[in-house]
Order: sequence, then C-alpha cells, then structure tokens
Amino acid sequence: MEDLLGKEFRCLDKGFVRLIDYMGNDDSIVQAARVSYGSGTKRVHEDRGLIRYLMRHQHTTPFEMVEFKFHVKLPIFVARQWIRHRTANVNEYSGRYSEMKDEFYTPEEQFLRKQSLTNKQGRSEEGFQTEEAQAIISSFADLADNSYKQYEELLEKGVAREIARIVLPVSNYTEWYWKIDLHNLFHFLRLRLDAHAQYEIRVYAEAMAEIAKQIVPVAYEAFEDYMLHSAKFSRLELLTLKTMLNDTNPTMELMESIGLKKREQHEFLDKIRIFFE
Amino acid sequence: MEDLLGKEFRCLDKGFVRLIDYMGNDDSIVQAARVSYGSGTKRVHEDRGLIRYLMRHQHTTPFEMVEFKFHVKLPIFVARQWIRHRTANVNEYSGRYSEMKDEFYTPEEQFLRKQSLTNKQGRSEEGFQTEEAQAIISSFADLADNSYKQYEELLEKGVAREIARIVLPVSNYTEWYWKIDLHNLFHFLRLRLDAHAQYEIRVYAEAMAEIAKQIVPVAYEAFEDYMLHSAKFSRLELLTLKTMLNDTNPTMELMESIGLKKREQHEFLDKIRIFFE
Amino acid sequence: MEDLLGKEFRCLDKGFVRLIDYMGNDDSIVQAARVSYGSGTKRVHEDRGLIRYLMRHQHTTPFEMVEFKFHVKLPIFVARQWIRHRTANVNEYSGRYSEMKDEFYTPEEQFLRKQSLTNKQGRSEEGFQTEEAQAIISSFADLADNSYKQYEELLEKGVAREIARIVLPVSNYTEWYWKIDLHNLFHFLRLRLDAHAQYEIRVYAEAMAEIAKQIVPVAYEAFEDYMLHSAKFSRLELLTLKTMLNDTNPTMELMESIGLKKREQHEFLDKIRIFFE
Amino acid sequence: MEDLLGKEFRCLDKGFVRLIDYMGNDDSIVQAARVSYGSGTKRVHEDRGLIRYLMRHQHTTPFEMVEFKFHVKLPIFVARQWIRHRTANVNEYSGRYSEMKDEFYTPEEQFLRKQSLTNKQGRSEEGFQTEEAQAIISSFADLADNSYKQYEELLEKGVAREIARIVLPVSNYTEWYWKIDLHNLFHFLRLRLDAHAQYEIRVYAEAMAEIAKQIVPVAYEAFEDYMLHSAKFSRLELLTLKTMLNDTNPTMELMESIGLKKREQHEFLDKIRIFFE
Repeated sequence: MEDLLGKEFRCLDKGFVRLIDYMGNDDSIVQAARVSYGSGTKRVHEDRGLIRYLMRHQHTTPFEMVEFKFHVKLPIFVARQWIRHRTANVNEYSGRYSEMKDEFYTPEEQFLRKQSLTNKQGRSEEGFQTEEAQAIISSFADLADNSYKQYEELLEKGVAREIARIVLPVSNYTEWYWKIDLHNLFHFLRLRLDAHAQYEIRVYAEAMAEIAKQIVPVAYEAFEDYMLHSAKFSRLELLTLKTMLNDTNPTMELMESIGLKKREQHEFLDKIRIFFE
Repeated sequence: MEDLLGKEFRCLDKGFVRLIDYMGNDDSIVQAARVSYGSGTKRVHEDRGLIRYLMRHQHTTPFEMVEFKFHVKLPIFVARQWIRHRTANVNEYSGRYSEMKDEFYTPEEQFLRKQSLTNKQGRSEEGFQTEEAQAIISSFADLADNSYKQYEELLEKGVAREIARIVLPVSNYTEWYWKIDLHNLFHFLRLRLDAHAQYEIRVYAEAMAEIAKQIVPVAYEAFEDYMLHSAKFSRLELLTLKTMLNDTNPTMELMESIGLKKREQHEFLDKIRIFFE
Repeated sequence: MEDLLGKEFRCLDKGFVRLIDYMGNDDSIVQAARVSYGSGTKRVHEDRGLIRYLMRHQHTTPFEMVEFKFHVKLPIFVARQWIRHRTANVNEYSGRYSEMKDEFYTPEEQFLRKQSLTNKQGRSEEGFQTEEAQAIISSFADLADNSYKQYEELLEKGVAREIARIVLPVSNYTEWYWKIDLHNLFHFLRLRLDAHAQYEIRVYAEAMAEIAKQIVPVAYEAFEDYMLHSAKFSRLELLTLKTMLNDTNPTMELMESIGLKKREQHEFLDKIRIFFE
Repeated sequence: MEDLLGKEFRCLDKGFVRLIDYMGNDDSIVQAARVSYGSGTKRVHEDRGLIRYLMRHQHTTPFEMVEFKFHVKLPIFVARQWIRHRTANVNEYSGRYSEMKDEFYTPEEQFLRKQSLTNKQGRSEEGFQTEEAQAIISSFADLADNSYKQYEELLEKGVAREIARIVLPVSNYTEWYWKIDLHNLFHFLRLRLDAHAQYEIRVYAEAMAEIAKQIVPVAYEAFEDYMLHSAKFSRLELLTLKTMLNDTNPTMELMESIGLKKREQHEFLDKIRIFFE
C-alpha cells in the first residue's frame, strides 16, 4: 500500500492524480457497520458478505468512514465540472497568490472529435482527417502560447496577478488537494466513469478508481456489481420486461449457476415478483 | 394551493405535518434546467418531458431549486431517525428553554406487532390477541404517565429543565420546523416510504408525499415512475434476466402499447443490450 | 417587494444579479426561533430584539429558514471563487449543451491596478497612466475577440462544443441560478464584502446585500452591527486592550449614550471582565 | 501517538470517547495551504506562523484536510444535541437491530442543580441539600430500572425491538462512530466547550479537545488563541471601547511585551484604527 502513496497516475497530457493519504480500508467499513448493528448481525454475515449487503441496500454511512486525500493536476474546465461535487474538501492553487504556470491541455488526435448530433452534450465517434486534426491541435497550442505570452507581459507591466490571469483559457492547468470519503467517491465515480461524462474528466475518474480498488478491494468489487454494472428499470420498463418474460420463472439452478447467493436469490425473486402479479 | 398551507395532516396518535411555506413548483424545475442547457434543449422537450428526462437521468440540481418548509410534531424516536438526513434545516423545540409537553406516542393495536424473525430490523405481520395487546398498550401509557409525573415533580423541586427531562421516554413528542429542497425530499421519501422503514416514520413520509404531489404534480409522478417504482438489478441479476429472456426481443409494438415514449424506448433497448451480447 | 423580483442589478461590464424568487422574511426568522424556544422566551423579546439576539449569539438555524434564488451572470474566474461556497444549489449554463456567448469581462481603467507588494493576494491602489491603461484594456479585448473567433472556427469545423470551448479565457461570461439560505448568504457576504475579496466578486456581493437588505431589513441590520462591522480580538490583543484601558470602567451612562441595550450592556461587561481580573 | 488510539477517555458515569483513527497532523495543514499559495508564501512563513495565520484569517480549508474518527458512548439526550452538527459522518447503534443496553445516565450530586433564573436554557450554581439530592438521584435510577424492566418484559412477550424501545428514557446510553474534519471539530468545540453548553455534552468536548491537542498541537494552540479565547465586539461595543480608550495609543513596546508578532501588531492597529477616526 505504501507504494501507492505519492505514486503519479498520469492523466491527459500534463495532469496527474496522486494519493497523498488515506484513512481506513475494507475492515473499517465492517467495523463501523457492526457498531450500528450491535450484536444484531454479528453472526449473520462474514465480512465480505456484509460489505456487499451494505452496498446493495444503500446503507451508505459505513462507507463514509473511509477517507482519501488526492493531489490532482487538471485543466480548469475539468476542475469546473469536478467542483460541482460539493461533499469534499478542496485546497486549490491560487492565481491571486501565485503565477499560473505555462501548462495547457491540448487534446490528442484520437480524442479530437466532432459534435454528436444525437447527444447534445457530447462528442461523436467521428474524428478528423489527420491533416485537419493536426492543424486544429496546432491552433490550440498557438492560442495557449499567445495567451500565456500576454499573461507574462501583463505581469511584467505590473498588473496584479488576480487581474492578469483573466486572459488565460480554461485549458490552463491548475492543481488541488481533494479529500473525500469513500461513499462520495463512489458517487463521483458512478457519474464520471459513465460513458456520458466528458472524456477529459473520465480519465481522472479511472485513475482514482484504480487507486480505490487497491485500498478497498472488496468494497470496490461490490460497487462494480451493485452500482456501476447495475441497471435501474422504471415502472414501465419493468412492465415491458414482465411481458417479455411471459411468466418465465427463474429456477434455483439458474440463479445458483450464475452465482447469486441464497440471500440475493430471495431479493431477486422479490424484485421480479411484480412480473407474476 | 393556499388551502394547503397550514393544513394539518395527522400522523400517529398526536403528531402532524403542516406545510408552512414553499418556494417554486414544476415550472421552477424547468426554468432552472433551461438555464443549464441554454438554447441547447429548448426545442427538444416540452416541460413535462423535460422534468421526466431530468429525473430519469439523475440530473438532480434543478429539483434542488424547489424548497419546502414543514412544521412537524413527532415522537423523539422518530425524530432521531429523521435527523440523520443532514441536507435540511431544522429548528427543534428545546427542552432546555421550555417544558416538554405531556404528550407521548402509544401504538395502536394493529401496529403493535412481534419481532420479525427474518428481518432483524423490523416487526412481523404477527400481532397479539386483543386482550394482551390492550394490556401492553396500557403499560405504554402508564409508563408515559409515570415518567411525566416524575418530570413535573423534578421541575417543582427546582431541578433545571435540561436535567429533569432526561427521565422522559423517547415516545415523548417534540416539534420542529424542517426545511428541505425537493431533490433531498425525494431522497427522504424514497428511503422512508419503503416497506423496510419503521412504520412510525413512514406515516410522516406519506403525509409529505401527499403534500409534494400537490405542489409539484409532474415531478412527483416522475419520481414515482423512475425512482419509487423502479427496480435496480445488479450485474448478476441482469445475467439471470438475460438467460430467462433467452433472446426475446421487445417489439416496438410492445413498448408502444406499454407507453414508453420514443426516447425511452431507445434508452430501454440500450439498457438491455447486455442481454443480447 | 414584487418590484424587486427580476430586477437587474448590473455588475461589472456585462454581468448582473437578479432575484428570481425568495421564501420568508424577518417574520420567518422569529417564527422559527419561537418553535425552538417554545413559551420559554415568548415574553422576553419583541421581534427585533429576538433577531438581534439570535445574530449576536450565533444561533444560526432560524436564519436558515429564509431562502433566496438568484440569477447571476458572471465571468468564469468569478464563478470559480463563488462556487467554493458549497452550501448552495446551482444550475449553471453548460458549455457542453450550448455555445458559449461572445461576452467577456474587460476591467475598467480605475480597477486595472498593480500588484500589491504587501498583500500577496491582491491589487494595490496604484494604477496606470491612462495611455498605458487603455493599451492594456485593448489587449484584453483583442485576446477575447481572437479567442472567440477561434472558438467559432472550431465549431464551424464541427469540433464538439465540449472540446472547442477550452480555448475561451476565464474572462468569458457564464450564467447560473444560485439558491442559498440567509445564514449562508450572510457567510458569503461577510467574506466577499471584505476589502480583501477580489473587486470583481465584491460587486456581486454588494448587489446581493442590497437585495437582502430589502427582504430582511431587521436581520440585515443585525448582520451589519454584529458581524460585518464587528471586530474579533485574540487572546493577546485582549491583553493589549486591557493594558491600554488601564482599569478604565465603562459607566452605564456611556453605554446608554452609545445605544447599548440593557442586555447588551451586561454582555459587554462580561466580555471585558478579563480587563479587570 | 499510537498510545492515544483506542484509549478510553471516560465521560459522565458510563460514557467514553475513544480515538479510533485519524488522518494528518499539523504538517498536513501546512502542506495543503502551500498547494493553495504555491510559491506565493513559501518564504514568508515558517510552519507555525502559517498555521496561526490561517486560523486568524479564517482560511479554514487547510484544516479540513485533517480527519478524526471517534468511538463515543453517550446518553441519548446528549446525542440529540450532538447530531445537530451536520458536517460529520455517523454510524449509530441501532435499537431496531439490537437490544438497547441497561445503561442510563444519572447525574452526580454536584451537577444536579436548580434552574437558572437569568439563563432560560441552563442550570444555576445552586444545588440541593445532600439528602434531597440523594433522593432525587435515587429517583432517576429507579425510573431507569423500571423502564428497562418494562423494556425487557415487552421483548419477552415478543414485541418488536423497534416498538419496545420507545419506553426507554433519553438518559439511556447509545454508541456511535463519529468522523469529522479538524475545521468542523474546532467549530464543534468552540460551541460545546462554551460555558453555555449543557454540562453533559461539555465533558465530551473536553475529552475530544484533549485528544486533538495531542494530534495537532500547533493548530490547537492557534484555535485557543484566536477562537476559543478571543472576543468579538459589535459595532456599538467598539464605539464604547473607543470612548473608554480616549485616544490612548498602544506603543510598540507594549505590543512587543505582550507577545504580538510584527504582522499581528499591524493587524491589531488596523482593527483599532476605528478608535482614532
């Protein structure tokens, strides 16, 4: 674990995520849950089962007992999406106290893509011819250079840092310490690992997922099984499924073979009871 | 709407929920979303569709723009569960400033039930013979009476209110103002309308649901369709469904007949794509 | 009050603050406090006195019962400072959904000032010769023009909006709905009306202060007297004051003449008791 | 430090506070602040000075980077005050899952005091004659015994735990894990170490203060100097002080002798500038 502390996970062209410190692990989740349940569930669950039960039933408070502190270097436009997650602690580099650095994000060719026509908020799969792509990428770099040159000139003339920096584009890199508990990190990851999240924040989510997986492997697996790779069906969707299933009953053998534990088999049957009403 | 303000919704034997004030309605949700999307989605959605889209995709911030303020009278043990919802504002009656009142919760016979053997945290369907039930209910009332008598004696002797009140049982009623935004109210309702929530808090959730339904009918209906009556299936459960469905494809006719709108049909097909991989 | 709703308070060269909706007023603060205190303080305070007492003693929860919703247009670099206040609800214009507008902040000559040498985080009183100032201001405008031109070209080439926008400087204007309770608004105002806050966010704080003053005049006055124009002295500073005062005792006449109410006179004597120990 | 982990700090007759885990120390505060300030303040401050500067100027975010997790055993009426601090994570023992224990708070004679006549919310200095005090204390114990006996009888009859527990008084002990960052812990301590806080919660604040002092000695000292032992003067109080001071100027010798550092001397002069206007 100690190898993980401080290790730089590269993100985008000049960014990174580093785990600076953390508190707790899978055991801390179990320990906190056992305080809540007292002797009530002591014998019922072994630890792994308990963590999975908690995740499945959205008993989220024990996951709040694990804490992570990251050092992140990221472009301002990514920082602006990120900061919308309010349940975290942040210390960001200040452009009032110090000079912003000459570091800007430029997209790689493969991620420079056209506006999606079906998805108002995202890019499509369609890219550009290499030549056009390279020209565009150069123009990003040129604009960043020009902006930074102007920034430096303003500082040289004595303009206050807090004013001069307004010429810098949102591709400029900033840094922060970001501290968050595991429950809220999972919430962040669920939203930002999603295919609809902007690519440039997704790579940071992936780096933090990699780190979390190593610190809390059991909780992370539960997160994948019950959150990340789950699907929620609406009232009408459930009715559609019901019709499609046409009174098919899952056999215990089927559920066993797929790996559902006894308790989860009951929960599943309970969820699909609506199909047989 | 003005009829709703101040109207007492009775809960339990002596409690209530009253809507004191509110800000916003279905239109405010739409208005806030349109600020986010700019001209981006102006023509795509009519209002109802937009609210349902937001709910379905967990774009929760526009729902935070509606606010409710309730006056609630509730037993202390219910207040202790309720207060765990941290994203709300509270002003509670203080047993340090003022005398606690001689009002205690006594369960009705039909809700006085035995410990569930399968569910560690709840009561079963099994009640008591009327005679035994009445004896138990009397004993609740007697204990409350004795406690309050002792409380009054302590106050008469001059014992400070903040000390004297420690003799009062958690069935004692308290009151508070509770202010919450619609997103967080829905979160509260989803957890506390659930069959696993303790009956005594569920009745309060039902009263507030009744009120919300009148203030934001469209959002409330979306909440029912996409949250309350939805079901989330885990990775393994999806695999089980896949096997059960055995390559059955939903026809467009089926989806239409059940009432799924065009866009939701695509979303549904997307969710069950895993079934055909 | 209805005149206030929607009224545009201009901020900077192209920004504004508009009150969109609000819930509650001075009476709501009193009403919430009376729920807490029960009959305990009913006769002691008239309303104004109660509000001032609450403010003075940092009984903050009754102030949380009043809510404001603002529509704000502001440069991105101001938005980045503003969003650090986490206890608020936000819906911001999205550069992924819609095109950013061709509107950028350019400082007026009088606010274009040199870096302070004593204060690492701010500007000094010293400006530039008009000619130099105008040249600098032109360069801001040119850079904004060039950036926006490049942004438009990228969009024309089909580059996804979420990528193209990274060329825009943080002087670009954005918009949001921002909802906050009065307690947290006062906290925001205390920090952002301060002389150390960056000028460009201070003008927004001033506009919101203007609005709050009209909705909750009594609470706002209490905020000025007990928060904004108060001073906190540290342990050593108190010792310094003690020596300076050299056993001078405030007479009741003095306190009366300055306007301290009876209860506040006692509180004051209590605070300076340390001077006579 | 490791000796501190798990060590029981006794509180009241049967309660305790134990530090279960923590993340960070004085260095972490400095490290986080340096991220914000970049090279901006690197040379200006040594570490201790920086921490004190941050505290003095309410730059609170670096203090949020230190985290504490406590195990606490406390009476329900104390838990009810405590839980009002919302910015913390909690896992509480559940009376639905498990049986409540036969442990109740009984005040010691010296803390059994009469209602204050001047302070609506507290007890006075006046106690009871030993004989009367002992009789009252016995009555607390008897009531607790009777309640618990009735609780056990209800459980024996099969009444669900979640119902049976409503007979237990708020003097009943509960337990929880409580996780909080240092900034919010200081906020808790400032309110709950205060003479106006109820004695029974103050003893817990004192235990946690003792622990914090050992983990973050420099930050704790700054907290004492600039928060706990500071005094805030209102606008009118400042005018009163001004008159009392009657143009007395603090000499540099005085400020030096009392221990104000150079920078703080300027801050002090700045605060009292109003006295000479």
